[in-house]
Order: sequence, then structure tokens, then C-alpha cells
Amino acid sequence: MTEEVFSYERLTAFTRGIFRSIGCSEEDAHMAAKGLLSADIRGIDSHGIARLIGYVRLWEAGRANTSPHIRIIHETPSTAVVDGDSGLGLVVAPFAINTAIEKAKQAGTGWVSVQHSNHFGIAAHHALQAVEQDMIGIAMTNASPLVAPTFSTERLLGTNPICVAIPAGEEPPFVADMATTTAANGKLEILQRKNESAPAGWIQDKTGRVSTDPHELKHGGALLPLGGDKEHGSHKGYALGAIVDIFSAVLSGANYGPWVPPFPAFMAMPEQMPGKGIGHFFGAMRIDAFRPAEDFKKNMDKWIRRFRSARPMEGYEQVLVPGDPERIMESERLEKGIPLLNAVVKDLQALSDKFGIAL
Amino acid sequence: MTEEVFSYERLTAFTRGIFRSIGCSEEDAHMAAKGLLSADIRGIDSHGIARLIGYVRLWEAGRANTSPHIRIIHETPSTAVVDGDSGLGLVVAPFAINTAIEKAKQAGTGWVSVQHSNHFGIAAHHALQAVEQDMIGIAMTNASPLVAPTFSTERLLGTNPICVAIPAGEEPPFVADMATTTAANGKLEILQRKNESAPAGWIQDKTGRVSTDPHELKHGGALLPLGGDKEHGSHKGYALGAIVDIFSAVLSGANYGPWVPPFPAFMAMPEQMPGKGIGHFFGAMRIDAFRPAEDFKKNMDKWIRRFRSARPMEGYEQVLVPGDPERIMESERLEKGIPLLNAVVKDLQALSDKFGIAL
Repeated sequence: MTEEVFSYERLTAFTRGIFRSIGCSEEDAHMAAKGLLSADIRGIDSHGIARLIGYVRLWEAGRANTSPHIRIIHETPSTAVVDGDSGLGLVVAPFAINTAIEKAKQAGTGWVSVQHSNHFGIAAHHALQAVEQDMIGIAMTNASPLVAPTFSTERLLGTNPICVAIPAGEEPPFVADMATTTAANGKLEILQRKNESAPAGWIQDKTGRVSTDPHELKHGGALLPLGGDKEHGSHKGYALGAIVDIFSAVLSGANYGPWVPPFPAFMAMPEQMPGKGIGHFFGAMRIDAFRPAEDFKKNMDKWIRRFRSARPMEGYEQVLVPGDPERIMESERLEKGIPLLNAVVKDLQALSDKFGIAL
Repeated sequence: MTEEVFSYERLTAFTRGIFRSIGCSEEDAHMAAKGLLSADIRGIDSHGIARLIGYVRLWEAGRANTSPHIRIIHETPSTAVVDGDSGLGLVVAPFAINTAIEKAKQAGTGWVSVQHSNHFGIAAHHALQAVEQDMIGIAMTNASPLVAPTFSTERLLGTNPICVAIPAGEEPPFVADMATTTAANGKLEILQRKNESAPAGWIQDKTGRVSTDPHELKHGGALLPLGGDKEHGSHKGYALGAIVDIFSAVLSGANYGPWVPPFPAFMAMPEQMPGKGIGHFFGAMRIDAFRPAEDFKKNMDKWIRRFRSARPMEGYEQVLVPGDPERIMESERLEKGIPLLNAVVKDLQALSDKFGIAL
């Protein structure tokens, strides 16, 4: 697990170059690179540049369209459905959250469900676009099935993350971005590389029994919904993942449940898919559609400070507010650079050689 | 724990009579009784008629206004803030969800944040009002602090439930109604009465250590957010509870975090409260603001049937869809009646004597 450190700027420029090479416009390549690197900079290594080669393979397999005609196919004053035309989620999602923001300017809120898209990176990047406009931003996406509902031995849901980002005043925004599982798949990948066991409550084997083997998913096992088991509320995590699936895909006409197409291009597409591509859902709520933004922000500051100053358990310095860990990581990595595993650097080097873009 | 069984109609009529006796209009009393009993009929015994005496005590303490002037104090095409004028949540919430539904008819969606309210019963009852209009219904509320955020020894959040109710076609609706904790407070109350231990992961003691004593909250302990501990994602349950708190109270101008007033009338009000009463948040999204309702419902039926037919773990008959257990309970209790614990019957008898309303 040796690492090499790269600057944010260098990785962004490289990523932009690769997206240009596979056919993205200058503007789309810029947007996609910024979106992808927002994961690395915030410490969500599983969703950042480590996936660049995966996006390229999707394009090579003809599953991602790098010059899509993204468009609104249905709308009301506060809603829209967007057809991503099989574009990169990193390009489709910015179109969709902007549509939600524009709707919110007129109607108070905007809600956009997206069909025919691909993986969009981290949800927080998109939700935060709304925060810049004094709005609450919401972003969610479905994903290919890795998660077993409570009592099920079949995988029927993705890790289906939800992000809610809320502006504050003097304090930085509240940003909750979470997979609806006990542990994100990225955490499992880290254990796999280290060959360490997973805590009980993260995964089950193919019969539904508790497992601590991080390789269990290769043998028919599944990730568990937030809660872990019924006694600890896994039916709630299952319900949250289901809500993300329905808002993202049943509302938009994308694929849902076990029919969501996989990210790895080498995996076969599901049979008899009921919709188009994968689905996302976005919301933007103008703060001043509820109360004056200054009143809201003053109270958000009070909320954040009260929680951050709560008496911590022994051994912990302080209680965190959602978004704190990623913000700390962001300032560290902007200064010191982004460490990449050698396996990731090797993938980037292969892309560099293939497209003649200097890393 | 002996029980007595009453018919739904009998308990509804009695409850209506009691609400009339404390000053509710005929219409409000009807609405409040229907809302309260919707908990008993669905098996959520902790939130139903067992709380009737609590509502009466709030009124006696001057903390609940039974002839409130409920009104919209701010609005846009898709949003509103409602001032509940210290009314019963069982009366304020129907006004607010109806406001959301009316907004959705015009703007596609409606979103209503509520200040100056009291406890509203179960969230599902309110969210389901939207389902009757071919809309997705959303309801949430904050509550007085019983839950410790991850790493905190202080209780700063309520059990803050979220309900999302989604219409289907031939299948019954998808109804997820969940406290954002591993276990609802009602489940703890059952263990207290039985004098049984709680599973590890439900509660912590006043220092933040795992506890299995269901009476721990009386000694400074706290309920745990969904996830239980950090390793199993409690920061996600904490974030969900926080989102409910902010949407319900910081957006509306109600009290939040540790300042939410308690339900039991004998408990002192918090000092230096930053807002008015407790807060709720409601949403209504018209299905056909996204796609034709028939297409959506056909796909929801497919979604529900696929999940319900998933291969179950050994020892389980089938995988459930959110809303199934409560619906099974509802048909059983409509037929066989609602069993009430003797302690609850005693409270109702006291109310019957006090107000001269036959039980």
C-alpha cells in the first residue's frame, strides 16, 4: 500500500485531459474533472480519480456517451425530469442540479429526477452547488445492487447515497453525505487491500448469516443496510435505500432495484431492464422561501455551535457536525497534496500512455 | 401487563369526546381523534391513545391551545411556513400537509415548515393524506432531546421521525415511517414495563458507554442514533436526526436541538428557547409532475413485487416492503379490536370520570 502524492491542480488537469480525449467538450471535461476530484480532495478516495479508468472503460464499451444531448423531458414550475442521454453522471448531474436551482429561484424549490445517466461521483459535490446560492441542496443516486434488504439473501439495492447540504452564516455549511448502508463499499475495498476482517454488521454471506470476510460479496454475500440487522433497525436503512431508488429511478424512468446497470464495464448488463440507465434525484430549496436568510443563518450558526460544543465522551476531543471531517481533509490535501495508492497511479499511467496526456 | 380490547370505533368516539371537552371544535376533535387512533390501529401503541392523557395535561398546563388561529406566515408558489399558534400537533399537521398538497396541485410540489406546534402523533398518518391525491407524502417532526449525537454524552436530538409514503397501483402504498434512532422510545418503554434488558446498541449511559438498562435515560443516559456506534454508521443516524431538526425548526422558527419543549407537562420548559414550540416539516410531490401517474404506478407495482418475492433468509417467510407490518396490524385490529394495557385503560377511565365522557 505505498503511495505517491500529487497536487490537486495536477490531478485535475490530467483528468480534464483524459475526459477531453474520450470526446468531452472543453466545458464538460472541466466540469467532470472538478466533480471527480471533489471526492479525492474531501477524502472519499473510492469515488475520485481511482474511478477515472472505469469511466474510460464505460466509454470504450459504448455505455457512456461523451457528447450527450441532455434535456428536460417533462416539467412543472417546481419539478423536472431530465434525460441524461447516457452521458457521464459527472456531466448530467450538474445540468440537473442547475435545473433544480433555476426552478427554486422562481417557485421557491426545485426537484429534478434523472433517467438515462451514469455514476455521478460524490453526491455532496452536486448538493453544494445549491448552497452557493443560499439554498439547501439535496442529491441522491441509485447504483447497482450490492445491498440485501432486511431478511433477504438477494442483493436488490445499491449503496444509494443521500446528501443534504445546508448553508450556515459564519460557520461552514452542514453537509451530510452518506451511503444508506452501515459502511460504504469504499471502506470494504480498503479492508480487502489490507486483507483485514470487517466488523460484524457490515456484510452477510449468501445465506444471510453475519460475515466478517471483506471478500464475501464475490461469493454471493451482500452489504447490509444502515442498522445492520433487524434488532438494530436495518429495516430503516433498507427503507432509506429504497426511497433513494424510487425517487431516482421510478419517478424518472431509469432502472431500479436489481436492474440498475453495473459501473464496471466488464460486467454484463441486467436482462429485461425496465428503464433507461441509472437514476438520480436532486432538490434545491431557497432558504428565503421559508424565512429571511439572515435569520436562518444566525440560527444555523447557533445550532452548529451548540452541537460542536456538546460534552464529548472520554477519549474524544469534540462532537463533530456533518461535513467537519471532509472539510478538515480538504484543507489538508489542498496544502499537502492527494496521496494515491500505487495501484491507482499505475492505472493513471496506463491512461497517460494510451492518450498521450502527461500525468 | 394484562390487557383489555376495545373497538376502533369506540376509542375514536371517546377520544373525540375528550378533545371536545378540552375546547376543540367538532371538526378539530374529529381530526385529532382520527390522527391519534391511526397510531393504535397500525400497532404504534406508544403514539396513540396512550398519549391522550398527556395531551390533556398539556392543555391543563396552558401549553396547548385548543382553539388556535393556525395560519401561513410566509409563502412562495411551492413553499409555506405555518404558525401553529400552540395548537395540538394533531390539528396543526393536517392544516400543514393540506397546504403542501394545495401547493403541489399548482406548482408540482409543496413544502411546508411549521413552527409553534405540539406533538403530532405518527408521521405516517399525515404523509398518507398526500398519497390519497396521487402524491408522494413526506412528514417529519422534531421532538424533545433523548438522543446523543455520535461521541456526545449530552442528549441534543429527539427521536425525530421521517415518513415517506409513496402510492402504487394495484399494490398498497410504500410507507416508511421511522424514528432516526436504532430503536424508537416506545420499544424501550415496553422493555421497561417487562423489566427486560435492551440489546446493546440502543442506549448509552451518561458517560457514553454501551448500556442495556432500559431505565438508563432516567440516569442521564441517551438513545443512540440509527447505526448505534461510529463503526456501524451512527454518524449517519445522527445526521438524519439533525436534518429533521433543521428542516422542522431552523427553517420554520421553532425550537431545535436541546431547546425543544418536552411532551410531559410536568417537565420544565427549556431556558432561553430560540424559537416557538416544536417544529414539523411536510412535503407533497405530485406524481404526474414527473411522469404519467399510470407509468409510475405500474413500475411501483413491479418494484414492490420484486422486493417482496426476494429469496428470504432461512426462518423467514418473505421479505417485507415498508408499510407491510403496519397494514397487517391494521386489518387485524379493525377486525378484532385494539388491545390496551391496564395502565392505559386506567388513564382513560380517569379522563372518562373527569369529563363525563363514557369510555
